[in-house]
Amino acid sequence: MPELRKDPIVNRWVIIATERKLRPFDYGRNVEVEKMEEEKNKFCPFCPGNEEKTPPEICALRPDGSLPNKPGWEIRVVPNKYPALRIEGDLNKKGVGVFDAMNGIGAHEVIIETSNHNLQMADFSVDHLEKIVKIYQERSSDLKKDNRFKYIMIFKNFGVEAGASLFHSHTQLIATPVTPKRVKEELAGTRWYYEYKERCIFCDIINQEIEKGERIAGINESFIAIAPFASRFPFELWILPLNHNPDFDAIGSKERRNFSEILHVILKKLSIGLSNPPYNFIFHTAPNRFFRPGYWQTIDRDYHWHLEIIPRLTRLGGFEWGTGFYINPTPPEESAQFLKELKI
Amino acid sequence: MPELRKDPIVNRWVIIATERKLRPFDYGRNVEVEKMEEEKNKFCPFCPGNEEKTPPEICALRPDGSLPNKPGWEIRVVPNKYPALRIEGDLNKKGVGVFDAMNGIGAHEVIIETSNHNLQMADFSVDHLEKIVKIYQERSSDLKKDNRFKYIMIFKNFGVEAGASLFHSHTQLIATPVTPKRVKEELAGTRWYYEYKERCIFCDIINQEIEKGERIAGINESFIAIAPFASRFPFELWILPLNHNPDFDAIGSKERRNFSEILHVILKKLSIGLSNPPYNFIFHTAPNRFFRPGYWQTIDRDYHWHLEIIPRLTRLGGFEWGTGFYINPTPPEESAQFLKELKI
Repeated sequence: MPELRKDPIVNRWVIIATERKLRPFDYGRNVEVEKMEEEKNKFCPFCPGNEEKTPPEICALRPDGSLPNKPGWEIRVVPNKYPALRIEGDLNKKGVGVFDAMNGIGAHEVIIETSNHNLQMADFSVDHLEKIVKIYQERSSDLKKDNRFKYIMIFKNFGVEAGASLFHSHTQLIATPVTPKRVKEELAGTRWYYEYKERCIFCDIINQEIEKGERIAGINESFIAIAPFASRFPFELWILPLNHNPDFDAIGSKERRNFSEILHVILKKLSIGLSNPPYNFIFHTAPNRFFRPGYWQTIDRDYHWHLEIIPRLTRLGGFEWGTGFYINPTPPEESAQFLKELKI
Repeated sequence: MPELRKDPIVNRWVIIATERKLRPFDYGRNVEVEKMEEEKNKFCPFCPGNEEKTPPEICALRPDGSLPNKPGWEIRVVPNKYPALRIEGDLNKKGVGVFDAMNGIGAHEVIIETSNHNLQMADFSVDHLEKIVKIYQERSSDLKKDNRFKYIMIFKNFGVEAGASLFHSHTQLIATPVTPKRVKEELAGTRWYYEYKERCIFCDIINQEIEKGERIAGINESFIAIAPFASRFPFELWILPLNHNPDFDAIGSKERRNFSEILHVILKKLSIGLSNPPYNFIFHTAPNRFFRPGYWQTIDRDYHWHLEIIPRLTRLGGFEWGTGFYINPTPPEESAQFLKELKI
């Protein structure tokens, strides 16, 4: 059973992931690289025909009405074979002297975005992206029903440098029994701002960015893509809905279409303009609010969901780790301008 | 002039570093890798004889009484040629609509730890490490006199994967005009704990770790090296002084000796046990308290300096970035046990 442990100084939870355990001796022989090489030369567990190499599917888009765990799917969702958190059991929160711990209960799923091994997300049509986004929403809504989970995170690691261990295009979803630190900080910040100004800070940022224009990488009827003012990384991008909305999974069909469209354009431009760089994206959405009155009631008013895209173009050194203080060698105005002008 | 910008949601400062500017077009042709290759094949600006390739030295250990900026030095401190922050000027704090910004004023120095191009820190004798640590303290004390600076950070990037751009063994020092976010969080956490318990949380952790024994990687008369309970990374290690002390630069000669000794042992063991892995270390010490009454008066009582060592054995994916929630595949008890038993 994985264990969740809390750092008592900065209140950061960490998963000690026993299921994907690496022993001390493994590091000496660079097991991570070995594993990756091994997988590159072997078959791909996400390809059609290899369905039995993943745990049984949770759901799949099967336009031809084919059977579960058989070929014929267009998009397929399976549990992670080496989950960071386990779905069965109780949290069993406990104190360990000065420390806090609980069982690593949660969900860890993989959305296999395509049956085609060679296509990456930047290659997908807007139509196909729309189907993927709809599945993100469905999985998120489904997992929200489980009141052990406080947060549903959807994220993508593209490329080895960004933490991907398989090439075949996929997204991950993790449901956690605690609200992650970064999300709590965002909630505290947005709440503080609302109480001071009686406005959503993200809405204010969007208005200011539209007025200035210099940090907009793309915009359509429902969404804006900006290089944020205090970008930590070159080409860091946020895609935000123009209308205030705390929950990603609550978007309707028109917004889903517009979101898929702007995502398509941005990923395509990053791929063409920056030679297909490794990247991560992370959905920042409000935490689950099942049975949670009080403080949580202000979330609808305070929070504004968005997608953060982080190309991995520079390496982080000790300065960034030690301080949460980032050095970004490229002004966001230049990143935005470059992407805006790029033809695709 | 570099610019400091604050994210208004989570209050994180970012340096937009114009001096080491990378233009959007640079990323397409992978300029970082090119630069590194270039430097590998050319001469080393940190080697004796190439003193004119760095800005003029700030200080140096010259046992032979040789002239500044000439060979003969044992350890040499120079300004960073591509500084993230600039030493001259005023902060000029300003609002930019909803955002905050100020000039990137600060110091960015490089401590060239040895004249021998081929030795790394794990190879140094305890005597030599002691000299380096003394220079860290001297530079830190000197920069603390400048009341524009709120924090002095000393850190090391070893290996390309850890963000190093030059092979020749060196440490960096950055003095910042704002207290970094992570440090503020530590201060808030330690203060909260002190007010609740009337004890330093680090002192409590040390006592508990000594009692349990299972996460101790090394210990001597003045210092303990532990794999922290909620380690974010495999083989994350903290070296803490056994006696309560907020400021690294305040340690005396006996403690300096003992610190150098435990650092020597730990770096040697990491190098041998994990095949010379890339790593970062970061001194976590109390912020400067020049002319800062009120809140800051409790720092002496609350804070406990320490060194954090982070071997870069795994790659961070989107999950960690998005959430500040880490997945560690190796229990700290196993890391500590492995290092404790390793013979050097």
